[in-house]
Amino acid sequence: MATTNGHTVKAFDEDLGQLRGLVAEMGGRAEAAISGAMQALVRRDLDAAAMIVEEDRKIDTIETEIERQALRLIALRAPMADDLREILAALKISGVVERMGDYAKNIAKRVPVLEGAKAIEPLSILPAMSRAVSDMVKASLDAYAARDPQAAILVCESDKAVDDFYNSLFRALLTHMMENPHTITAATHLLFIAKNLERIGDHATNIAEMVYFAATGHQMAERPRGLDSLARAI
Amino acid sequence: MATTNGHTVKAFDEDLGQLRGLVAEMGGRAEAAISGAMQALVRRDLDAAAMIVEEDRKIDTIETEIERQALRLIALRAPMADDLREILAALKISGVVERMGDYAKNIAKRVPVLEGAKAIEPLSILPAMSRAVSDMVKASLDAYAARDPQAAILVCESDKAVDDFYNSLFRALLTHMMENPHTITAATHLLFIAKNLERIGDHATNIAEMVYFAATGHQMAERPRGLDSLARAI
Repeated sequence: MATTNGHTVKAFDEDLGQLRGLVAEMGGRAEAAISGAMQALVRRDLDAAAMIVEEDRKIDTIETEIERQALRLIALRAPMADDLREILAALKISGVVERMGDYAKNIAKRVPVLEGAKAIEPLSILPAMSRAVSDMVKASLDAYAARDPQAAILVCESDKAVDDFYNSLFRALLTHMMENPHTITAATHLLFIAKNLERIGDHATNIAEMVYFAATGHQMAERPRGLDSLARAI
Repeated sequence: MATTNGHTVKAFDEDLGQLRGLVAEMGGRAEAAISGAMQALVRRDLDAAAMIVEEDRKIDTIETEIERQALRLIALRAPMADDLREILAALKISGVVERMGDYAKNIAKRVPVLEGAKAIEPLSILPAMSRAVSDMVKASLDAYAARDPQAAILVCESDKAVDDFYNSLFRALLTHMMENPHTITAATHLLFIAKNLERIGDHATNIAEMVYFAATGHQMAERPRGLDSLARAI
């Protein structure tokens, strides 16, 4: 690593550690937002939902802070290739976490629309899907913190289960809509929520792929997609 | 700008110009993918749709090349604050364009699923919405190329029209589904396509906001959201 301006290796490592800490904090908040949004939905808790929406600003603020610190680190320390790549990885991962936070916010925003809706049977699958997704997010960030390529592979493998949840929900909701046309509006919102969760799982996979690449220098082998022909589009 | 390693300002400007050129090329491809996907959908042209899906790899490849060049530029030229910010902007905008390409790909992927579907009346609004979105994407990238904050403001203002399209489509498709439960599967795919277009419009707005910030040093004033209470979630 570069010490061109007299700073020590230790100081640089501390800065990098701080950057990684911010990514971890941001990730923890996104994870909490996902499970919080799902709880708010299940309980039809409008106040909790509004808090999740508000919380997303904080996630965005941390992303801005990560960018600021990354820029400062590059400008001050003139890091060499490996360190530069690590800073870029923190930037990219924080961008992905920001998108996860957005999806959680979008789930929370649908809670008021669903408040008056009658119970829709497929809704019972959503919390289990949400837990699987939260677990993936946590595991992807743990893999990042530990720079562990094996853990990253496990994250990618678990995306299959999330895709299976989505496929089940997609079919169940469409059947439900056909049999109960008066629930179409509510079911459509649940469909979008399921799609948001599925996308969060994809993003956890993206993070795991970045972790793998950063740790090994190789792309993870292409994995087979879990979405079937009916629901695979998007 | 920094010339610490003996390189001239001109060489750095050329490198930066090349980076901006790659962003422009990537943006042009994403724009073409959006209109191509919509044409493939309207004509139920499976070959054209498959080509759009394939094309997305090229967009991803350019993003990787932009990252590679940005890293090289930072490492070789040790740019100062303003230039570093410009490099970071190119990285961020290419990340947004990659997401736009993803959405276009997702639209194209739904073409085979909709191939056998009967004509659904609200489908007729989609091409107009798609044109409005393509225009926004083009205008956001033109604003980036010209570093023009006024043009960036216009992009953000035009997002209202895209949101209005989405609201109309959302309502029209839900009504259509209730009246024709046998078209629910096809209508659901069209709903996801409309949502993809609406998200592309949001991303064009994001680019415009970055252009505005880079040019003026200020955040663009918060604009009122165009989505109404029914469709605003996500």
